[in-house]
Amino acid sequence: MMTFILFLFSHSLFAGDLLTQKKIFQLGDYTTVEGKKIPAVQIGYETYGTLNSDKSNVIFITHHFSGNSHAAGKYTTADLEVGYWDNIIGSGKVLDTDKYFIIASDSLVNLTPFSPKTITTGPASINPKTKKPYALTFPLVSVEDFVHVQKKLLDSLGVQKLFLVAGASGGAAQALQWAASYPEVVERALLVIPPGLSMPDYTVALLNLWSMPIKLDPNWRKGHYYGRSAPEQGVAESLKMITFSALSFDWASNFKREKYSPSTLESLDSRFKIETFLDERAKLRGKLVDANSLLYTAKAIQTFDIRSKIDSLRAKFLFIPVETDLIFPPLLSERASKELCDKKINSHVSTLKTSGGHLDGLLRIHESSQVIADFLADKISFCP
Amino acid sequence: MMTFILFLFSHSLFAGDLLTQKKIFQLGDYTTVEGKKIPAVQIGYETYGTLNSDKSNVIFITHHFSGNSHAAGKYTTADLEVGYWDNIIGSGKVLDTDKYFIIASDSLVNLTPFSPKTITTGPASINPKTKKPYALTFPLVSVEDFVHVQKKLLDSLGVQKLFLVAGASGGAAQALQWAASYPEVVERALLVIPPGLSMPDYTVALLNLWSMPIKLDPNWRKGHYYGRSAPEQGVAESLKMITFSALSFDWASNFKREKYSPSTLESLDSRFKIETFLDERAKLRGKLVDANSLLYTAKAIQTFDIRSKIDSLRAKFLFIPVETDLIFPPLLSERASKELCDKKINSHVSTLKTSGGHLDGLLRIHESSQVIADFLADKISFCP
Repeated sequence: MMTFILFLFSHSLFAGDLLTQKKIFQLGDYTTVEGKKIPAVQIGYETYGTLNSDKSNVIFITHHFSGNSHAAGKYTTADLEVGYWDNIIGSGKVLDTDKYFIIASDSLVNLTPFSPKTITTGPASINPKTKKPYALTFPLVSVEDFVHVQKKLLDSLGVQKLFLVAGASGGAAQALQWAASYPEVVERALLVIPPGLSMPDYTVALLNLWSMPIKLDPNWRKGHYYGRSAPEQGVAESLKMITFSALSFDWASNFKREKYSPSTLESLDSRFKIETFLDERAKLRGKLVDANSLLYTAKAIQTFDIRSKIDSLRAKFLFIPVETDLIFPPLLSERASKELCDKKINSHVSTLKTSGGHLDGLLRIHESSQVIADFLADKISFCP
Repeated sequence: MMTFILFLFSHSLFAGDLLTQKKIFQLGDYTTVEGKKIPAVQIGYETYGTLNSDKSNVIFITHHFSGNSHAAGKYTTADLEVGYWDNIIGSGKVLDTDKYFIIASDSLVNLTPFSPKTITTGPASINPKTKKPYALTFPLVSVEDFVHVQKKLLDSLGVQKLFLVAGASGGAAQALQWAASYPEVVERALLVIPPGLSMPDYTVALLNLWSMPIKLDPNWRKGHYYGRSAPEQGVAESLKMITFSALSFDWASNFKREKYSPSTLESLDSRFKIETFLDERAKLRGKLVDANSLLYTAKAIQTFDIRSKIDSLRAKFLFIPVETDLIFPPLLSERASKELCDKKINSHVSTLKTSGGHLDGLLRIHESSQVIADFLADKISFCP
């Protein structure tokens, strides 16, 4: 049975701010691609704008590794932060809420189940049979599973076509998976700071490293930490690595080798300011993160691979890598686009030439608004 | 008192192979830049070629983060491996042992004190007062300390000029420090895969991450693991990160997303082949590594900074970054060289355009032999 329940957040309309609310999609039973049954599956979502009468104006947004369905707007005007892509989603922006009906979705095994902005089902969820958290008894899932669950959400809204599916980083992997799993649904795919058509081995290894500190933390206890001390240190170190990977040399150079302690040769614990910054940020973010869910998300992203489905793709593709990206450098987009063009599939690459690394796919994506607008208006020239 | 003692290895000359032996330089007491006294300091070194009568043909080689003084040749003809820069050091090679007297040196706090190829003094050394390993009572040292100890080695050999000082990566930091600390000694400096004139904040953070798994390992016990279970897992994970950082996207893509286990969605422990490869390599290398020494080396490298001494530099500089280097990308060399040229110091950058990342500064440095030869022959054009 599918039902929709309004979540905690209420809102009052106010000029200037896009105000939104969290919604829950309750799917019920879901069977994974690998054949494992999960009961009581639910994910969160938000919508911006209005669905038109023929349901032809739908944009679906999938989120990045450490993100969630809060892609734009605020829950109340008093909120200090807006959603991660607020710079391109809203009235008059390139993903124009006056024109499009935009759905931003959570994914399975989201690594921030303790955030009020996230609704997900994963290893930290309560197993209805045991009334305890699943921990590692939760089945491993893939990006394909993320997308199948999201498709059920779309079905529940009565939407049969996506004018656009869009995502950044791990969200781009999901958007590509959408185009591969549901070619008859997806008309366009916008891939920002994306992998290619599969997760490169380099990033497979990077995801292994992001997972490593959690497994090293003695509090992890092979996943059985619920109701006990959580592996907070491991989670913080994982997040520190993730933040570090998403940045760049030029971003880091802003710290100007400033020292936090008088002499860094004072003790092994003395720090440069960049170290302190990364540690403090990671510790703060860690409060919302479930260690097992991070491991599950990493595993799902590692296994992303749509190469075998390339012949069935029908969407038009726009890749926007960031020139200084150290996780998914532009060459991955260029190679993926060439593979698509070789198959006579419409594809275009437009590199964002900024200095901030991977994270600029969120922070500075509005600088690519013109090429996105051209893509949405079918005014772009595809393939050489 | 300075003495020289031949180390364990004997050799017999054999055509074709450069045969070498490990030597020990015993310095005795050394007082660090920060004023801490260390007794019974010793480091290892190797020499290749013959010192000429006026001692004007000396090349001094400093080693990278996980390296040691075994830069070239074999100890016996039966050895399977040669030194890390054997591709440029030897008879007829660009660092020609028929022409130059080459000294390759160990550094303080070398992270592989358990390797028969390394002789060093650091936290794993026995404190003569307590007859136990120093552990964290060993004073923190800097790249400047590395070089001051090496200068004493040079003094002991009666050498007053260096035709060339050369090093890769952390060895390049030492070579730059040589040029800054002893401008009257160093005539030329060859910097391969180098940082700039200081360790960039990005790499400061990376070194923090390399150190992190050791500190997370419960066996580390704040450095007090000697005589107990060593933090082997932490060391292995540190080394895995270091290897990963030194590679590249193209290198990783050789694994072709091959899976080690039938399905990577089988369990959290299932692996892609690149993960297994990195794990196994790290575990093997870990046997020679002392955890505390790795932390000390990381701290020393983090603090490298010769910017305040730029006005006193007198050497000629050749920077050879690798195009695909993810630890020290070429822009760092370009910026450093520009800073030198702005001060009317002779400097040149020649980028090695290979796809293997940082590690190509060791594996493929021979492809830069011509520009190195031109540099040594003063046939290079410096600065724009």
